[in-house]
Amino acid sequence: MIRMFISLMLLLSFAQAEENLPSWNEGTSKQSIINYVTAVTKEGTAHFIPVKDRIAVFDNDGTLWSERPVYFQLYFAMDRVRELASEHPEWKTTEPFKSVLENDMNGVMKSGEHGLVTLVNATHSGMDVETFKTEVREWLKTAKHPTTNRSYTDLIYQPMMEVIRYFEANDFKVYIVSGGGIDFMRSFVPEMYGIPEEHIIGSNGKVHYENGKIIKDDEINFIDDKETKPVAIYYTIGKHPVAALGNSDGDFAMMLYTEANMKYKTLQLYVHHTDEKREFAYDRKSHIGKLDKGLDYGKEHNWTIVDMKNEWKAIYPFELTK
Amino acid sequence: MIRMFISLMLLLSFAQAEENLPSWNEGTSKQSIINYVTAVTKEGTAHFIPVKDRIAVFDNDGTLWSERPVYFQLYFAMDRVRELASEHPEWKTTEPFKSVLENDMNGVMKSGEHGLVTLVNATHSGMDVETFKTEVREWLKTAKHPTTNRSYTDLIYQPMMEVIRYFEANDFKVYIVSGGGIDFMRSFVPEMYGIPEEHIIGSNGKVHYENGKIIKDDEINFIDDKETKPVAIYYTIGKHPVAALGNSDGDFAMMLYTEANMKYKTLQLYVHHTDEKREFAYDRKSHIGKLDKGLDYGKEHNWTIVDMKNEWKAIYPFELTK
Repeated sequence: MIRMFISLMLLLSFAQAEENLPSWNEGTSKQSIINYVTAVTKEGTAHFIPVKDRIAVFDNDGTLWSERPVYFQLYFAMDRVRELASEHPEWKTTEPFKSVLENDMNGVMKSGEHGLVTLVNATHSGMDVETFKTEVREWLKTAKHPTTNRSYTDLIYQPMMEVIRYFEANDFKVYIVSGGGIDFMRSFVPEMYGIPEEHIIGSNGKVHYENGKIIKDDEINFIDDKETKPVAIYYTIGKHPVAALGNSDGDFAMMLYTEANMKYKTLQLYVHHTDEKREFAYDRKSHIGKLDKGLDYGKEHNWTIVDMKNEWKAIYPFELTK
Repeated sequence: MIRMFISLMLLLSFAQAEENLPSWNEGTSKQSIINYVTAVTKEGTAHFIPVKDRIAVFDNDGTLWSERPVYFQLYFAMDRVRELASEHPEWKTTEPFKSVLENDMNGVMKSGEHGLVTLVNATHSGMDVETFKTEVREWLKTAKHPTTNRSYTDLIYQPMMEVIRYFEANDFKVYIVSGGGIDFMRSFVPEMYGIPEEHIIGSNGKVHYENGKIIKDDEINFIDDKETKPVAIYYTIGKHPVAALGNSDGDFAMMLYTEANMKYKTLQLYVHHTDEKREFAYDRKSHIGKLDKGLDYGKEHNWTIVDMKNEWKAIYPFELTK
């Protein structure tokens, strides 16, 4: 029994040494992630971080799964608007509903993140949270991404899942800090990413308690974007992260907040969307996932900028089984 | 090495079997806690709860430390008001400041939990969160509880610390869900109770992000009491707890929310303040920590009601070293 245990441990440690970040090509980004984790987890050395302070925060849209042509949650909200439109004649003349019903994506996009949350709130108030999450799960089972015709849950980034597992294996607590809706994410993230509900931070609506249930009200409570990402981290986590991983200027404040950690060595990583062929290529001029200020600052300050095209062997998990 | 490891494991499991809840007298409450934890952690049996769903929520004031004559945070806030009064002549005529400066405790108490947060916000806006927490820690070093002349941090409940450790040893995630201020608690709870910042939920004020720091604004954001305790649990944890431990009607909704968990066997525990001699005796008619509706409901529904006087060998840790 004991011998078996030791063999297993050896096997595991060997497998781990072999298999950290297997979907990453050897290169600057992979090396910087491994160098960082190695530096901060070796007890007795200069950059050691105690386990309790190993907090890593990840953006979701464009960092852990794709966000093009528009945020996936927006497709969900638009499908719901279409389903419920007959009960809401006023939507025909009210934005952002009007644009949805007219299939005017530009009009919808103009409403921004605020519009997205408005759509979700409006179509999902008056029901309890668990019912909402079940609806999202049902939708995910059949909905198809418009340009790839894949399930949305197929479009998660394999290399970033490996970063999450690598952090966890080194006793980091991994949190998602996203502009996406908290209930939308909580409906699939625990199963898809292996990150529990209590580590998912996002935009959210007002709710109230009633007879053992949490009921969703039709009002925005908190938009988790830009300067409010550090605020959300404060409310939920209560301490400076040491690692922040994102892909847009929406993550810039959260990354600066992490960099401002006075106590510990930190890691900032930007996923740079450079792969027009396998995914999408966009940065400074994009409406979705605009990366401009952060890109300049990151390059000047030695942040890790991942070139998806050249540094990722695979983007999506389904490429591995080809 | 291996032999030493095995000896150590045997020693630990022996020590654990011997020492669960050592400050509890044998009796109904101790047995119900142990029965519950035993029932839900045995894989393959009817009431087994997977580790990911083992969420326990504890109230703080009156559940993990004393709350009489008034909430300890109120003493802190009042000391700060006195210190800063010369800069705020308007306080002489504005409640709840007026009552504080006139040493009128009844007047202060009338302002309730809202008044407490107002006092804290007013005396602590415009500074960053870390500076605030340092001030609380400095205050705790010298401040004395008015009736016992003890440090406030001496007045934590030894038997409840043992419940926290017992839950943790059985892979529960332990959260505090308190009406007290989130930053006030985060300043001492991690060190005193061994519960990390990210597991502390409480009332809080508005904040904003500025140059790598979280700055506290002079405005209430969220009061975590009664029906908003389940709401706070939803935002931060995102799933039904399985165990809820409190001492007042302020915890009643959180306990009902836990009881409404459809998936798992749950535990509800009330600390009933019955010990006038070693602590304080109060329940149905108290302004602070009123326990009335919850006591009736709990008795009818087989909740665990702890009789502090008869079930706790020691109340405070300092009694152990007598």
